[in-house]
Amino acid sequence: MFDTLFERNFIPWKFYPKRAVFEPGRDGTYRGPRKEITKLTLVLKKPDPETLLRPLAGSVDESYELALNTDGTATIAANSTIGLVRGLTTMTQLFFKHSDGQVYTKLAPVKIFDAPKFPHRGLNMDVSRSYYPVKDIKRQIDALGYTKFNRLHLHITDSQSWPLVIPDLPWLTWKGAYQYDMIYTPTDISDIQYYAALHGISVVIETDMPGHTTSIGYGYPNLITAFEEDDWATYAAQPPSGTLKLNSQEVFVFLEKLWNDLLPRLKPLSAYYHTGGDEVNKNAYRFDETVNSSDPAVLQPYMQSFVNFNHDAVRHAGMVPIVWEEMLLEWNLTLGRDVVVQTWQSSAAVQQVVAKGHKALVGNYNFWYLDCGQGQWIDFPPDSSEGFWPYADYCSPRKNWRLIYSLDPLDGIPANQTHLVIGGEAHIWGEQTDAVNVDRMVWPRAAAVAEVLWSGAKDAEGRNRSQVEASPRLAEMRERLVTRGVGSEPVHMPYCTMEDKGCIW
Amino acid sequence: MFDTLFERNFIPWKFYPKRAVFEPGRDGTYRGPRKEITKLTLVLKKPDPETLLRPLAGSVDESYELALNTDGTATIAANSTIGLVRGLTTMTQLFFKHSDGQVYTKLAPVKIFDAPKFPHRGLNMDVSRSYYPVKDIKRQIDALGYTKFNRLHLHITDSQSWPLVIPDLPWLTWKGAYQYDMIYTPTDISDIQYYAALHGISVVIETDMPGHTTSIGYGYPNLITAFEEDDWATYAAQPPSGTLKLNSQEVFVFLEKLWNDLLPRLKPLSAYYHTGGDEVNKNAYRFDETVNSSDPAVLQPYMQSFVNFNHDAVRHAGMVPIVWEEMLLEWNLTLGRDVVVQTWQSSAAVQQVVAKGHKALVGNYNFWYLDCGQGQWIDFPPDSSEGFWPYADYCSPRKNWRLIYSLDPLDGIPANQTHLVIGGEAHIWGEQTDAVNVDRMVWPRAAAVAEVLWSGAKDAEGRNRSQVEASPRLAEMRERLVTRGVGSEPVHMPYCTMEDKGCIW
Repeated sequence: MFDTLFERNFIPWKFYPKRAVFEPGRDGTYRGPRKEITKLTLVLKKPDPETLLRPLAGSVDESYELALNTDGTATIAANSTIGLVRGLTTMTQLFFKHSDGQVYTKLAPVKIFDAPKFPHRGLNMDVSRSYYPVKDIKRQIDALGYTKFNRLHLHITDSQSWPLVIPDLPWLTWKGAYQYDMIYTPTDISDIQYYAALHGISVVIETDMPGHTTSIGYGYPNLITAFEEDDWATYAAQPPSGTLKLNSQEVFVFLEKLWNDLLPRLKPLSAYYHTGGDEVNKNAYRFDETVNSSDPAVLQPYMQSFVNFNHDAVRHAGMVPIVWEEMLLEWNLTLGRDVVVQTWQSSAAVQQVVAKGHKALVGNYNFWYLDCGQGQWIDFPPDSSEGFWPYADYCSPRKNWRLIYSLDPLDGIPANQTHLVIGGEAHIWGEQTDAVNVDRMVWPRAAAVAEVLWSGAKDAEGRNRSQVEASPRLAEMRERLVTRGVGSEPVHMPYCTMEDKGCIW
Repeated sequence: MFDTLFERNFIPWKFYPKRAVFEPGRDGTYRGPRKEITKLTLVLKKPDPETLLRPLAGSVDESYELALNTDGTATIAANSTIGLVRGLTTMTQLFFKHSDGQVYTKLAPVKIFDAPKFPHRGLNMDVSRSYYPVKDIKRQIDALGYTKFNRLHLHITDSQSWPLVIPDLPWLTWKGAYQYDMIYTPTDISDIQYYAALHGISVVIETDMPGHTTSIGYGYPNLITAFEEDDWATYAAQPPSGTLKLNSQEVFVFLEKLWNDLLPRLKPLSAYYHTGGDEVNKNAYRFDETVNSSDPAVLQPYMQSFVNFNHDAVRHAGMVPIVWEEMLLEWNLTLGRDVVVQTWQSSAAVQQVVAKGHKALVGNYNFWYLDCGQGQWIDFPPDSSEGFWPYADYCSPRKNWRLIYSLDPLDGIPANQTHLVIGGEAHIWGEQTDAVNVDRMVWPRAAAVAEVLWSGAKDAEGRNRSQVEASPRLAEMRERLVTRGVGSEPVHMPYCTMEDKGCIW
């Protein structure tokens, strides 16, 4: 906190009138009496729950009360240590640096009572399609904590690379990672989990399957069908094609090794495990000698067994499964009541998931996919290229923060089912994002998701919250993120953030 | 060059098959005989022209010949020192780093003859709406030189801030800059010019006028009409409104001081000066007591005199004027034959400019505006916000590199007028771009512009050049830029760049 307040703070010149900075002391000097804070008291009102560092949604109370008093004392009280962390985060965000080197707030005295609306507030990072060094993941954790997210979902394997080291299945990374050193060792994973826990963030690891698994085939070729077909578009949503065989004894042996090796290591700091399940391509199973069919009616019972096998392993390890929406809504699987269903295609999907009695995560790709709008990453040869002009990607355009901010996670949800919408996630997929540009792709837009998930999408009159009020907040958060080493984009030019200006329609 | 070759080089693992890196020596070792380069000869075939460091389009020959020979010698020959710089740049780009620490090329022996198609290849950076420290401008110059651009156009003043220090007009920056230290001093400007010249790049300074000048009004309020109107949309394309009065003696006195102070300092390293002229809002002149009208017929002669005054000053200083297309195409001004017209709205604008016998610069905003697609930066209050959903900006979507690459500067130009299309510019405007995100907003997409301007848009069959061939080149350039400290976005995930893969439709 000392570091945040005194070392990584900033002079808020962008929030004063342009010419004010030329008037000595104008940047924040309060000319009346001034107080120093002499005492900060932290009050933990109850013992922490046992699940503090591996919370299920709702099992840890993140609310806090913060008071800055006229007598120079400050208090943060909460029902959990994570609540205290949230309060301390807010506390640092009340202060600015003055050009005289001091740190000040003009907001005292103040009393804040604050609590999140949704218990699952996450960012999903695809660290398979592009590899991220651990330090770059930690920088995202810094930013997530600072914006009061509480989940980091790592989409850690996909068809393009398998960076997750499984000591009992050594060929996975040895053949399947991009490079011998572009891997996540067991130590890396627990390091990430522990670092996140210090920020009140719980990590959810996802090994997407049975689709999105080509990378397994480099080390374990017998397990994958439709492996790297030239005609990839017939067998997969993107290159390379390849999917786990659906009824293979070898696959089940592989999975058993995977779960036995991985899950017990994750359990101490993760309550959830994500078994994937999106975009399974049925054509690929024509080549799978264990099922020999692309008929959904034939495949469905095999898929049910496959998912049951995995979910039983997750439960056996003391964790709760998460799956992508297709497993429930497209494949009509019967899922345990405990299973959380992650939606990504629409608000209708959320409605259908909760109507079936399942807990749902929101993440509509038309709003919260931060990678959209970069354009096609597939190369079109001259003979076909004109037909694809102007080369927009499937989820173009780029989702600006105003659009992101306009999504209500509870859109169309009946009042008696809203409790099943446990939150949502912003998503940053790796086709065109890596450690070099990730900060700009995620921030400050993810902070708009964070506010919707913490405070809800609607104001007191039931309207979407005002951009006129949100945009200075977001612009200030952007400056705080940059000051803390996160290369966030600007919200708009400095002129628009200045006290007596604004860029308002 | 030592630094580029040995210190800022990279191991090209992304361009080998995934598993190849596990085979010792596979990343680039040539197993046959190997040669060291023992001698590099630079041959300047003619004396440099006097205009070497302040070239008009076409006055400096940038072509070069490069030979890496089997006997370990290398030669770069050119008709100018800038040609040698281009050749040396290509030379460094033939080499990679090996995992054993050596630097190698597999391309030798090789002979290259290379020459640019267009003599004006620029990037226009808006350093007014958002301020850039000089070091961030220099980083762009590094990247521009590395991709063989030869012009840096600095849109250095606009309505939101005036960072350009004019010692004879001290209130311009004192009142008009964002902050007392967010300025470009005469020393900064000559430092930028000199640094650019070392990279074979000539700087074009633009003070946009008569529109886009509100920032003058903070220090010199009598010169600006429609200054910061609340109803900004009536008087300007964006907030704040404000424009130089069109027939004011005070304005002409101001301009004379400006030109006398600024232009002689620029001349040693700049052949061109850009007097602006885009998006002049006629409504603003209703408030201008020197013209008292918004009628184009009334305003046009005043505009003609205003532009004549400025262009005469530019010529008097020994430089050549550039203006935005509106001065010719919307205001129908009579411009000197020397004037270069910078188009931005369409290929039709280029056609019209050259049809009138003027030299034209290309920069169609639907292709080469790199800032597009970030979404609206104006805040919409709750009462109006729904009508603007999903908050796309005027030039949405973002221009991806394939789209950028598909623009032919010569589109629709008759053969006898193509010589008037002297080149073009990519543009990065400052509403939502500043020093933190500029690298990823400009690179690698500007490199696609660079290739079109250097090599032309069409292949030998007259078709747009193949993405399948361009994308590995661009992906390699991206890695080189990152290695040199420029935070370029990736072109696509590593899987797509790998030797035996590719992501091809």
